[in-house]
This record gives sequence, structure tokens and C-alpha cells, in this order.
Amino acid sequence: MTPMQLRFGRALPWRRCFSSTAPRGQIKDITELPDRIHPAYQETRHNDLLALQWPSPPRNVLLTKKDRAPDVTESVVEYAKHIHSTYPSVSLIFEPHVANELHEAFSFPIYTTPKERDVATALYRKKVDLTCTLGGDGTILHASSLFATSKRVPPILSFSMGTLGFLGEWKFKEYKRAFREVYMSGAGAGYGSTLLGDNEDAKAPQNSVSTPTTTDHPDSSPTTTPNGWSAIRGKSMGPTRGARVLLRNRLRVGVYAADGSPLTPSPTTTTSPSGAVYAMNEVIIHRGRDTHLAVVEVSVGGRFLTEAVADGMIISTPTGSTAYSLSAGGSIVHPLVSSLLLTPICPRSLSFRPLVLPAHAPITLRLSEKNRGREVEVSVDGVRRSQGVGVGMEVRVWGEEIRDGEGKWMGGVPSVVRGGGGADGGPGGEDHWVGGLNGLLKFNYPFGEDG
Amino acid sequence: MTPMQLRFGRALPWRRCFSSTAPRGQIKDITELPDRIHPAYQETRHNDLLALQWPSPPRNVLLTKKDRAPDVTESVVEYAKHIHSTYPSVSLIFEPHVANELHEAFSFPIYTTPKERDVATALYRKKVDLTCTLGGDGTILHASSLFATSKRVPPILSFSMGTLGFLGEWKFKEYKRAFREVYMSGAGAGYGSTLLGDNEDAKAPQNSVSTPTTTDHPDSSPTTTPNGWSAIRGKSMGPTRGARVLLRNRLRVGVYAADGSPLTPSPTTTTSPSGAVYAMNEVIIHRGRDTHLAVVEVSVGGRFLTEAVADGMIISTPTGSTAYSLSAGGSIVHPLVSSLLLTPICPRSLSFRPLVLPAHAPITLRLSEKNRGREVEVSVDGVRRSQGVGVGMEVRVWGEEIRDGEGKWMGGVPSVVRGGGGADGGPGGEDHWVGGLNGLLKFNYPFGEDG
Amino acid sequence: MTPMQLRFGRALPWRRCFSSTAPRGQIKDITELPDRIHPAYQETRHNDLLALQWPSPPRNVLLTKKDRAPDVTESVVEYAKHIHSTYPSVSLIFEPHVANELHEAFSFPIYTTPKERDVATALYRKKVDLTCTLGGDGTILHASSLFATSKRVPPILSFSMGTLGFLGEWKFKEYKRAFREVYMSGAGAGYGSTLLGDNEDAKAPQNSVSTPTTTDHPDSSPTTTPNGWSAIRGKSMGPTRGARVLLRNRLRVGVYAADGSPLTPSPTTTTSPSGAVYAMNEVIIHRGRDTHLAVVEVSVGGRFLTEAVADGMIISTPTGSTAYSLSAGGSIVHPLVSSLLLTPICPRSLSFRPLVLPAHAPITLRLSEKNRGREVEVSVDGVRRSQGVGVGMEVRVWGEEIRDGEGKWMGGVPSVVRGGGGADGGPGGEDHWVGGLNGLLKFNYPFGEDG
Amino acid sequence: MTPMQLRFGRALPWRRCFSSTAPRGQIKDITELPDRIHPAYQETRHNDLLALQWPSPPRNVLLTKKDRAPDVTESVVEYAKHIHSTYPSVSLIFEPHVANELHEAFSFPIYTTPKERDVATALYRKKVDLTCTLGGDGTILHASSLFATSKRVPPILSFSMGTLGFLGEWKFKEYKRAFREVYMSGAGAGYGSTLLGDNEDAKAPQNSVSTPTTTDHPDSSPTTTPNGWSAIRGKSMGPTRGARVLLRNRLRVGVYAADGSPLTPSPTTTTSPSGAVYAMNEVIIHRGRDTHLAVVEVSVGGRFLTEAVADGMIISTPTGSTAYSLSAGGSIVHPLVSSLLLTPICPRSLSFRPLVLPAHAPITLRLSEKNRGREVEVSVDGVRRSQGVGVGMEVRVWGEEIRDGEGKWMGGVPSVVRGGGGADGGPGGEDHWVGGLNGLLKFNYPFGEDG
Repeated sequence: MTPMQLRFGRALPWRRCFSSTAPRGQIKDITELPDRIHPAYQETRHNDLLALQWPSPPRNVLLTKKDRAPDVTESVVEYAKHIHSTYPSVSLIFEPHVANELHEAFSFPIYTTPKERDVATALYRKKVDLTCTLGGDGTILHASSLFATSKRVPPILSFSMGTLGFLGEWKFKEYKRAFREVYMSGAGAGYGSTLLGDNEDAKAPQNSVSTPTTTDHPDSSPTTTPNGWSAIRGKSMGPTRGARVLLRNRLRVGVYAADGSPLTPSPTTTTSPSGAVYAMNEVIIHRGRDTHLAVVEVSVGGRFLTEAVADGMIISTPTGSTAYSLSAGGSIVHPLVSSLLLTPICPRSLSFRPLVLPAHAPITLRLSEKNRGREVEVSVDGVRRSQGVGVGMEVRVWGEEIRDGEGKWMGGVPSVVRGGGGADGGPGGEDHWVGGLNGLLKFNYPFGEDG
Repeated sequence: MTPMQLRFGRALPWRRCFSSTAPRGQIKDITELPDRIHPAYQETRHNDLLALQWPSPPRNVLLTKKDRAPDVTESVVEYAKHIHSTYPSVSLIFEPHVANELHEAFSFPIYTTPKERDVATALYRKKVDLTCTLGGDGTILHASSLFATSKRVPPILSFSMGTLGFLGEWKFKEYKRAFREVYMSGAGAGYGSTLLGDNEDAKAPQNSVSTPTTTDHPDSSPTTTPNGWSAIRGKSMGPTRGARVLLRNRLRVGVYAADGSPLTPSPTTTTSPSGAVYAMNEVIIHRGRDTHLAVVEVSVGGRFLTEAVADGMIISTPTGSTAYSLSAGGSIVHPLVSSLLLTPICPRSLSFRPLVLPAHAPITLRLSEKNRGREVEVSVDGVRRSQGVGVGMEVRVWGEEIRDGEGKWMGGVPSVVRGGGGADGGPGGEDHWVGGLNGLLKFNYPFGEDG
Repeated sequence: MTPMQLRFGRALPWRRCFSSTAPRGQIKDITELPDRIHPAYQETRHNDLLALQWPSPPRNVLLTKKDRAPDVTESVVEYAKHIHSTYPSVSLIFEPHVANELHEAFSFPIYTTPKERDVATALYRKKVDLTCTLGGDGTILHASSLFATSKRVPPILSFSMGTLGFLGEWKFKEYKRAFREVYMSGAGAGYGSTLLGDNEDAKAPQNSVSTPTTTDHPDSSPTTTPNGWSAIRGKSMGPTRGARVLLRNRLRVGVYAADGSPLTPSPTTTTSPSGAVYAMNEVIIHRGRDTHLAVVEVSVGGRFLTEAVADGMIISTPTGSTAYSLSAGGSIVHPLVSSLLLTPICPRSLSFRPLVLPAHAPITLRLSEKNRGREVEVSVDGVRRSQGVGVGMEVRVWGEEIRDGEGKWMGGVPSVVRGGGGADGGPGGEDHWVGGLNGLLKFNYPFGEDG
Repeated sequence: MTPMQLRFGRALPWRRCFSSTAPRGQIKDITELPDRIHPAYQETRHNDLLALQWPSPPRNVLLTKKDRAPDVTESVVEYAKHIHSTYPSVSLIFEPHVANELHEAFSFPIYTTPKERDVATALYRKKVDLTCTLGGDGTILHASSLFATSKRVPPILSFSMGTLGFLGEWKFKEYKRAFREVYMSGAGAGYGSTLLGDNEDAKAPQNSVSTPTTTDHPDSSPTTTPNGWSAIRGKSMGPTRGARVLLRNRLRVGVYAADGSPLTPSPTTTTSPSGAVYAMNEVIIHRGRDTHLAVVEVSVGGRFLTEAVADGMIISTPTGSTAYSLSAGGSIVHPLVSSLLLTPICPRSLSFRPLVLPAHAPITLRLSEKNRGREVEVSVDGVRRSQGVGVGMEVRVWGEEIRDGEGKWMGGVPSVVRGGGGADGGPGGEDHWVGGLNGLLKFNYPFGEDG
């Protein structure tokens, strides 16, 4: 990043996007972009999903994709070109390695961060309004991990090339409608009335506990955004509706030395001062390659529960209940059940049935002295911590608070879930979880026959 | 309660108790007792338990016991005599068959209902302030079923003769302290300050959302109850604390004909007009003695989920997660996780993993036409409905709302759980659930050894 | 059936088949047929399957089919016509209700038994050389149950209309080749050399421990059967091979009164003097519609093992391991592992892991006095015993001996399994079990993806 | 080992034991001992156990013990002194580190091997008549591993200090009777008649298929062993009986490179030319510390079964079914069920139910190309192979043949199991497995109660 860029760039980000002289493949610095806009989430009459509401149109969109999948790469290019041409005020951000891979495909500039992970995640946290993923559940997990140190994660809009997963993916062919829905959510009075409650009524939601906020952008009121909603609204693209969001609770995990001092739980991040990071799926401790079983003292809510002798232990969110915990024998927990799952991995017990615990009760896994100096591995959302955890050390896990002190929704991973409302007709829009069960898990596939 | 009432009437239940001429074993009619007092439940700093708060001392106490257990019967007599002598304003109620069995053991009158179950449950609902059980989890389940048609269940104080169960039983030897704690909960200003937060601080609870109410008793203010708290408070019985209550969510179940009209879900009760009853543990459908598997269409929140082909299906509360659902392979769910469990019984599928669903999403089990006229059995909390459910009929289940419209806690089964605070020292008072896991389930009993 | 038929019929069954004057739909008495021919089973170089060897061509073929399935009925008619026209010396037997349904479809006589089940099974036992089933696993189970009191079950050749099951079904379109293979198995020197070992070598099998026997038929030597093998051999129908047989171990079950006297275990049969019957899949005891759990004392090899408190207990053969036992959580046991499975149904224990026990150790299930007079239901291969089993009564189960004293293979259910040799090429002929796993169970269907 | 020792030592091993001038703590070379005596195993009327029969009294006894357990060490010393004083012709062998630890406790010489594991195991294989273990199941597993390259394992007599395990341990306090039983088994005519069938009859066993053999010892006939049986027989030590042996099938495992060449499966041994070693419990492949799941192609009997995506795979003997496989969800398989268990570790599938396969069908686990260069860990009986297994490499497993070509019993691990016959009265001698289930596993521990 040159001083020149620093000096002029920030001032006029989207103007430059339109510069016809922009060299093909120009990669710009994400710091040139305006700061992030935080949407609000309002309760709807469907009490399991929230309505997304932007105070002003989103401007900075991060695109992540599955690696080593040429068809996905093609789709990303198509998607980016569509956004650029239809929503000219939107700037597109890519991870550094993706920006390098793709920039020549575009005639307009794209944005990225330095490669150092700490720097990158700090910038994403500050700049990204919306994340779009193309790939599968793994890609969503990766996108979520980019905000592992953020209390407030931008909404995630996900597209799947193949089987729809659990995490609310849309079919890629729906991308125009999907992006429009997300972009227009909050587009103002008279219009916004159809955004809530699926046209069922136009009354203001009773439980609205949150108001949109814009970070450091004095000029972000809807009425003064010429390149935003009003421009798009004029185009005839058929009926629309407000985007629905499922706030997925994450868990927060910290690793502590035997003396109680915090350690870094994950190699992927500079952690917050508390040393904790967030996980969308799970935190795992595991004996790794050691053939001795791990001996772990489990406490819940500050009280000793049991001493586990096992290959490992999983503490999972409901979202993670269909990931590793499922392999280890855990139940499937709906993402709206506020809870943490404690699932043992190959316990030396016939009677260690998996537990579903209240999200507000912190869970502690302490390495017992009985491990005789052996360490266990710690992984957060599938990424192994570079250093193991030794005798006396603790892994502490809390369910994430997804409302702030005043009851405003703010935490969790806001997944924009596929609705069926307008186009498909019928109220079946929120079938993402059931769809995942049946499509991805082959849930309840029957055997035998009664011939 | 007016002086007039005191002088005449219906009027003087506890005076008569002391009458030396009262015939041994007198059984009186429960309708002679004053109407029920409803306590309030206040949130405490321990966010998983509530503080019990009577507007005035409880007067009508129902005692239930395990049948066919002579040692339990002896303990009931001992317990009843203690209450009568120490709390003279309390009247004791027994189920008809127990009143007949025990009345000769007492020198004071006891109360009961007619034998007809409908009449009895209606009277319990109207009169009982507090229920005490002596026995095990089964006795608690029975006591709960006496209020299966009540939205508001009186607090239940339970004693176990042997192993402590999951449901918060106290050891019988603790009965004096336990009853005193429950009785004195709400005993007024200056005193009440120690009832909340375990002496940790005396500030008013921030989240108190409920105020004590007395049903149809205008004169029930604490200050005017000469035979109540003030009398007891004078006696030196050592330090006390307010009782802690775990509000166990129940589920509500209704059975519906193919045409949508409500049927009676259980033979144990006259149902409410809606035809629904409450269950503390679970509702089960089962093929019974038919060797053909049941075919059941499962919907959640109004959306089709799956077609189950199985011996049966269980819909359970978290409290019921350690009952039948556990036998069928379900996870153990903490009673404070607001949820419903859907657990199949011997499904013809390798991939029907048990589900934990949000409590607010109604679950429907519909008998498929594929059952070819065969019926399935329906059981609510272990009691089988006299008539089966046939093709096209539905069992619908809702999680119970345990707060009313204004957020006041009122539903559920209020279990007085054992505290360790004062006497035992330490904050570990609420270990009932962990105790049940380890004591009753032999949870995580290790096998093998590394010799 | 006219007196004339009775008088002359037995002598010349197949001659009459060709009578052009035979009335359409003639149903004859099975007693007119010659007595049954017992094949031998020889070990092959593939040590998991045996080679079928008839001493003379089979003559009496029982056809059973799935009920209420019009497409199956059509296929049965096609199949029967093919056998009649190609193998004129074969007589076709149907169950009474099938004979009534189908006889008008044929221009030749068919055979059946009286409807009384006892009489019918005794006649099948005496007359049937080979059973063919069209339907699914349930049809095979039914066919097997017709020989539930026979030590020696005729070979079963099964066809499936749809998904191939576990029990070695052939696709119906293969029926010509399949029947030819079975019919020609044992067709003599020079020819027979290709029957063993899949053409791999022509040496006599080393482990042949069994010689073909013909029951009361002096003239059954191959060389003197003009209508048998020699006639068929002349027809050019391409290469053939000997049929491969999987001898499925059954279990033998007896029910005994509290005083040790034998009772009838099943309503489906007149039992042998010992009172025992054979089951191909499993015997089950179950609490039925009683909501109380059954208390069962389990002994193995005469020694007390455990007291089970459960909905019920399953004792299964390996063949039955993919039936009810699988639903109840049992492992999948290959049919060649000589064993019995003990699988509890919803046990009130976290630690009652299913057991796989030696086939030679008898298992006893005794109803404990703790059942307080309640009975349990007993089912054998899916058919419920009309009377329950009460306190003190026992269900005793033995694995079937499938070799006689001299090591000759004779017991079990001889399933003719599909080979891939000739037509399909490749050695994969014996993939019936793996095929069932993958096709029928959707075994190891993966979830998630790593995108 | 000096030439002197070689020349004189071998001739007179037990004479030297009595030398009063032997320096305290003398450790001698195991090569001084005569070569091993192989016992025979005869079938008994109890068809699940075999009768041990020495051709002449055992002379070379290996003692192994649990490490880091002072009470076990004390017991070993007591045990060794008893053997030395009561059975003077027996020489005691210890592993090198144990010999060093203990030799000063003895006034007589003890024997050991060099420390190099390959050399040691080759010498054990050549010299040891009988192994005695003091400790738990882990100690037995270790003793078994010393013979991991031997087709013929000496009998193992095991003692437990605490809980009796699955593997037939005796209580240590029974050590005198136990060793006498083993030592005297085969002590000749007139005496031997009580060795078979638990005194039930004196007839020769019908199925005796094996005759005792002595390796290279011309003078080993019973009648010419003055220091052997005759000496002991004279002593009055109460009634005795022949030792009962459970032959535990092992599995044989080989690791093969992608080109089919054999690799060393375990770091614990020099392998046989075939590269294979034996395991008593199981062979495991596991992803180790890699967070990516392993992708494994599973074949059975040469046919592809399934592609497993999992943390790992276990192939276990029935003996190992109560070890790791149990933790991973496998069924409990009786050691007399000839089979191999295939149990996945945390598979990414809801429908990978554990399999029980015939022992004679080899199982192959091949690392799929989908692992993209990642390796998996291989462990045999809890000992990890120093090098992982990479893409294209295979782990092949066979069930052990425990009879030779003529049907003589020879393979497996011969565990001397505790009998109850003589001393305890009653036929319940063979309850070791049931005892392990109930004592060690807390099998079928009930939960709940019906209060």
C-alpha cells in the first residue's frame, strides 16, 4: 500500500470503481473503503427468524469461495460481475489469495487485505458489511472464522453449487433474487412494510428491540443515498421481500494455564484481550496421536460434573450438532435451541450419554494430573491449535450472548436463509434445517421392506 | 380472611384440629378448606433457579406417597405429625385411598376428595397450596399428573427414602429444615432480604417480573396472619433461607380426530375445553401388541419433517430426557434447556438420530394411511389412553409457556430443589441434576483399567 | 378334486399336466405328488458358500408370493408358465389362497394343500423339493415359516421385483437362468465338474462330507430320468454353473411353563413333540401394550447373566441382525458368523450394550416374579403368539445345528444366492450381503461435505 | 553370555538353582534353560473350554507384572518364592527391567533376556513354557504382545490384585491352587482321569484331536521326571483338577506398501518374513492429530465393501470387543464367537453400524487417494507404529487359525481361566466372561426406579 493510496483512496472509494481507466485486475487496499454498516435484526411473527434491516444500503461485500473447485471459481466471477453491474455502489472484497487468483477476470477494481491473518481479520471486522460464500458448509465455516474475534459478525449469504447443506445455503441459480433481497432489506417506509412478516400484515413488529445503526457515517440516511436503494428500486425486477436471518449462536472458548492466565486458543487469530475466540461449530480436545486416553475433569456452571476418560471431548453449538458431534453420537439439536452440547469421543464408559446443557452455564474441561504429563490437542472449528494443552490447563467454553444488555439482537452468525415466500409460493420458506436433515444427512432413511 | 370466618365456619379448620374430642381418624371434605394461595417466583442471581415467595403462609398441603412401601408410609405419618404440631395453621390433604389407609394414625382431622378422578383433580386445582411427595421419581410424576389440567401447578417438595433421583428430591431426614424453608419463603421485609441470592447481597433482584398473588383472598397480607409466619419465626430453629424452585417445563398434548376435532388425550382426566393435558415427562405413541410397525408423519412447526416407521415415537420434555427417551437412545437434556425431544423407538432406519427441537415449535404426529386401519397406543406420562389412535388422527404437542404475557413466571412444575447453601456451606446447592446423573444413572461409569 | 383324481392322480402327475383336456384352473391335491427329494450340500473352494447337488432333478416346486401386489402376481404367472413349458416334469405347488387366486391363469393343473395350517405345513415338509419366492424379504420369511417345524428346509430361490434385499434375492429378469442353475445342479459327471468352484478347477472337492439322498424313490438315478436333466441338457441355453447355497442358521425356540413343561411357542404351527419351532430371524418378547417394563432374567449356557428391565428382548440369528435387532441398536452380523444376538429393546440402563453370543450356548429368558402377574408378548419371526408368557415362564433359544453327527450339512435355510460368474463375469458372485448393506440399508451413507 | 555358560549352563539348569552358594540376586541368561515344552489342548464336555495337558511338567515360567505398582511387586516376590520352594524344578524368567528391579529379593537365580526387543521376543518364543501375569488386563495384553510373532503362545495364568477383568484373571489369594492346577495338568494316567470333564466321567474325551508334544526333549516322558509331577503329587495339598483353557483367537495384521510389498506393522517386534504380527485385541488406524478425516476403502474377503470417512477404523477380535471397539460403539462379542469386528471411529455417517464379520474373511483397509498425501496412524494392541500409513498403503487383517491342518488346537492365546469346580462347588467355573461384564463394565446397570 503506497502513501498515495493512503492519502487519496479513502476519500472516494466508489467513484474510483467507475473509472474507465482502471487497469484490468487492479487490487486495492480495503482500508480505502468506508467503515462498516451494522444492520439491525427485528423479530417477526415467525418467531424463529429475524428480519434484516439495513440503515442504508450495504457497500462493502466480502466474497469467499471453496478452494480448488474450478466450477465454483467460475460462479464467483459471474456473481461478482452481476453485483458490480447491477449495484454500482457496492465494492467487492476478496481474501488475498483469491484476489490474486481472480483480479484479471474483472474490468473493475477489487479490494483485499494484507496476508497477515491478524491484520486481515482486524480489517474485515472493521470494513465488511456483508459476506457472501460460494461452496458448502466448509466455506461458511471458514467465512465465520474470519470473524472469530468479532462480537458482531456481518450477515452471511451463502450459495451452494450442489447439495444444499444445513447452514441455509441458497441454490446458486437464485443468486440475483437472493442478493437483491439482502441488499434491499430496510429500503424504507412504504416499501419496508412488506419486508416484515411476509406480507401477512403491515403493522410494526411488536418486539422490535433493535434499531439500525451506522458506524461513523453521517450521510447514510436512506433518503440521501443516490447510488443505493432508490436506484435499484426503480428497476423492475419483480416483487421482493425482506431477507430473513437466522442468528446462529456461537460459543466462546478460552484456554487457560494452570495458574489461571489466559492463553491463545487458536492459531488462526490474534485474540481479544480476554484471549477468547468464537466458534460456530465446536471446540474439541483430543488425545491426538497419543495412544493413551485423555483424562478430563468436566465442570458445568462451576460445579464438577464428571471425570471423562476418552479419546476426547466435544463442546458444540446446536449448529455444530450436525458436524463432529453427530459423528461421535450426539443428538441433532435445532439451531434455535439455546444450548451447548457435550459429547464424548470414544469414552471408556458405557454410560456417558451425550449431554445438552444450557447455553448460559459455562463448561470447563481441565486436564487431570492423571495424564502424567501428556498433552491433548485443541481444535476450534476444525483448526488445530499449534500447541497442545497440558496437565492442569483448562479449556473454558461459554455460550454466546446474542442479545446485548437492552435485549437488542447483535451476536451470533447472521445467516440469511432461503425463503420460499414470493417466488415459490407457500409459507415453506424456512425449511433450510429440514432440508439439510433430509438432503444432507439422509435422515431417517428407511431400511427393509415389508414384501 | 375476616374474623367472622375465623369464628364460624368453614370457617375454622385448624381450630378443630386441636379439638381434643375430635374422633381419631376423622376425614373431612377438602371443600371446607380455604381456596388456594398462589406464590410468585422471582429470578435470582443464580439464573437457573427461582426464589419462591408466598404472599401469606401456605395452608393446604397435599401429601402423596409411594404405594405398597411400608417404610414410606411410616415416614408419611411422622412427617404429617411434625407439620401438624409445628405448623398448626396447616391442613393436610391426602388422596382418598391414602386418607383411608392412614386416618387412624392421626389424632387430628385430615382432608380428602371424592374418589372420582375428575372431581378430585378439580378440587386439588382449587385448593392445594403445596404438594409434598414421599417416594421416588414415580411419586413425583404421579403428583404432577394430579395437576395435568392445571396451568398453574402448586410447588412440589419431594423426599426420597433411598437414592436421590433427578427431580430434586431431598433426603427424608432433612424434612424439618426443608418444610420450614418452603413455609417461610416470603416471610416479609427485613427477613425476605436473605431469601434471594443466597445472602450474597441484599439488593432487590433486577429481574423480578412477578408479584405474589392470592386467589380470592383479599385479606391475605402477611402482617395479618397471626398463626402463620410470625408464630414460626419466633421459634429458634436456626438460620433459614428462601426455597429455590426449578420450574420444569411441561408439554401440552392434544389428540385430534381425522376431521380436526379434539379428543381426550388421556383417561386420567377430564380435559380442559381444548382437550389438552399437560405432561411432565413425555407423550408416547407405540404400536402396542401389534407386530406391524407404526407409520407416522412427523411435522414440526407446521412443516412436514419425516415419515417415521418405527415401534413408536416419544416426545419428551427435558425432564423426561432421563426417562423413556433415554432408554430409546435420546441424549440427556438439562431441564433448563427450553426444548422438546423427538426420539424414535426402534425405527426402521439407521439414520433416525434423536432430535432436540425448540419448545415453541409444535410437533404433530399423524397416523399415516399406510397403517391400513391399525391403531397405535398413546400414553401420557406412563398412563395409557384407553382408546388407541387410528389412521388420520393426530397427536399434537406444544412446549408449555412458563411465563405469561407480561413475563411473569407461572407455568411448569415448580420443584423445590435441595439447597446446600446455609447448612452445608458452599454454593453447591443446586447439584440435584448432577447428583441424579451420577447417583441414579451411574453416568459415565468407567470400564476397563490400564493395569 | 374328484375321486378319479384321487385314485389315479398320484401315479402320473406330470403326464396329466400335458393333457390338452385338462380343465383350465384345475387344482390338485399335493398328496398326489411323489415324496420330496433331499439335495446334498458340498463345500467349495469359496469357503462361505456350498454347492447344491440334487441326486435327481427336483420335481415339486412351491411358489410363494407377496400378497396384494398385482405386479408380483403377474410375474408369478409368467414364471410358472415358463417352468411348466421348459421343465415339464416339474409340478407347481401354491398355498391354498394363491392357488384359488391363480388357477384360472393356467392351462395346466397346479397343486395345493388343505387350508388348515397344521396339515399344510406337514404336507409341505413331506413333498416340497424347492421353494421359489417372488416378493421381498418378508416373502422369504413367510416361506421359511412354512418349514418352521422342519429340521430340513428345501432350498429357497428368491426373486425380488424391486430393491434387492439381504437374503440373496435375484432380479426377476434373471429367472430363466436362475431356475436352470438350480434345476441342473447335480446333473452328473462330465457336466457336474463345472458345477463346483466356478470352473476354477475340476477336481473333486476335498471337503465333501455329504452325499445326495433320495427319499423313497428307487428310480431317481440321473441316468433313468428321461424327463429330467438329459432333456434339458440338450437344449442350448448357454453355459451354466451349479447353484450356490448359503445355509442360514436358524434358531430354535421353546416356551416353557413355570413347572418346566413345554408350551407352544407360536400360533403358526403344530409344534414338534418338543414344542419347539425354528425361526429364521428372531424371537422377541415385549411388554406389548402394558406400560410397565418387563423384568426378565437372562441366562446363557445355564448361567445367570443379568436381569433386564426393558420394553423387551430380542434373540436374533445373524440373518435377523438386519431386521428388528438393527432397529433396536444391534450390530450387523454376517450370516456366516455362527452366533446368536441378544439385543435389548429400550432397556432401563445406559450400559446394556447388545451382545453377540456363541450359537451353541442356549439362552433363557425367564419372566421374573417382579412382573407382578403381568404377561409379555412373544413373537417368532414377526408372528405373535396368541397367548402371552407369564411370571415364571421361560423362553429358551438354541442356535440350530446345521451339520448332523457326521458333519453332513443339513439344517438351516438353504438360500440359493445370486452368482455373478457366468453372465456378469468376474468373481463377484457372492455379493448379496454387501449388496444388501449398501442397497437396502444405505449403509455408511456419508453426511456433510468438505467444501 | 560366556562360552562357559553356553557349555555347562544348559545341561543342569535346575541343579544350579539349589546351589547354596548362588550369590543373592544372580541373573542368568535365559539361553541356559532347556527349550520350551508345548502342551496339548483337549476338548471337554463343556464345549467352550479346553483341557490343558502337559507332556511333562513345565519348567520355564515367565513372570510379568504391572509397572509402577508397589503392591503388585510385593505379590510377585511372594509368588516367585512360593514357586521356587514348592516346585524346585521350575526356573523363573523375568523381563530385563523387572529382573534388575527384583533380583536382590531372591536367594536363587532368576533368568532374563537381553534388552533388545527382537532378541528378547525370539528367546521367549523359544524358551517359555508358561507365562504368569500379575496386574490387570493391560498386563495380560503386554504379555501377549511378547509373543506377537509366535504362532504358538504359551498358556497364560493371570492374577488380578483388584477387580477381576474380562480376561480370566484369578484372585491373587488363589495363587497356590491356581499354579498347582496348571502345573499338574497332564500328570498322567489314573490321575489325569479327573482332569477332564470336571469329574463328571472318566471316559476319554471323544473329540481329542491333539496329542502333547515336547520339543527336542527326549527325556521328557512323565515317568522319568523325578523332580516333576511325582514329587508334587506326594504332597497333600487337597483335591485338584486339570486347568481349563480358553483359546482366544488373535488377529494377524500386515501392512503393505502401495506396490504390495510388506512393511513392518508394529515397532514392537521383528516380524516374521511375511511381515505380519498377531494382536490379541485390535488393530486401529486413526487420523491422529490431523484434523482431516481419513478416507479408507474397506474390503472384506477381497470384495469392496464401503468407503469409510472417519476418524479411524478398528478391527478387533472378540476379546478386544470390550476394549476400544466398545468405546467406539461396538457390540460385545463373546470370545468363543469366531469373528472379527469392524467398528468405525466417529464416522461421517449416520448409518455406519458396526459389523461382525467371519474370522476367515480377510479385511483390507486401504488409504484412499482422497487423503491427498496425508497419513494415518496405525496401532496394534495399543502400540503405535512409528511410521504412519500413506495413500495407497493397506492394512490387511486375518482372523487367526487356531487349529492346524489336522484339527489340532494350537493357535490363539491360551488363557487359563478360573474354575469354580472343585473348591467352590458348583459348575459355575467358567463365569469369567459374565463376571467381567458385570464387574468391570457395570453392564446393564439400571437407572431410574419405580417409586
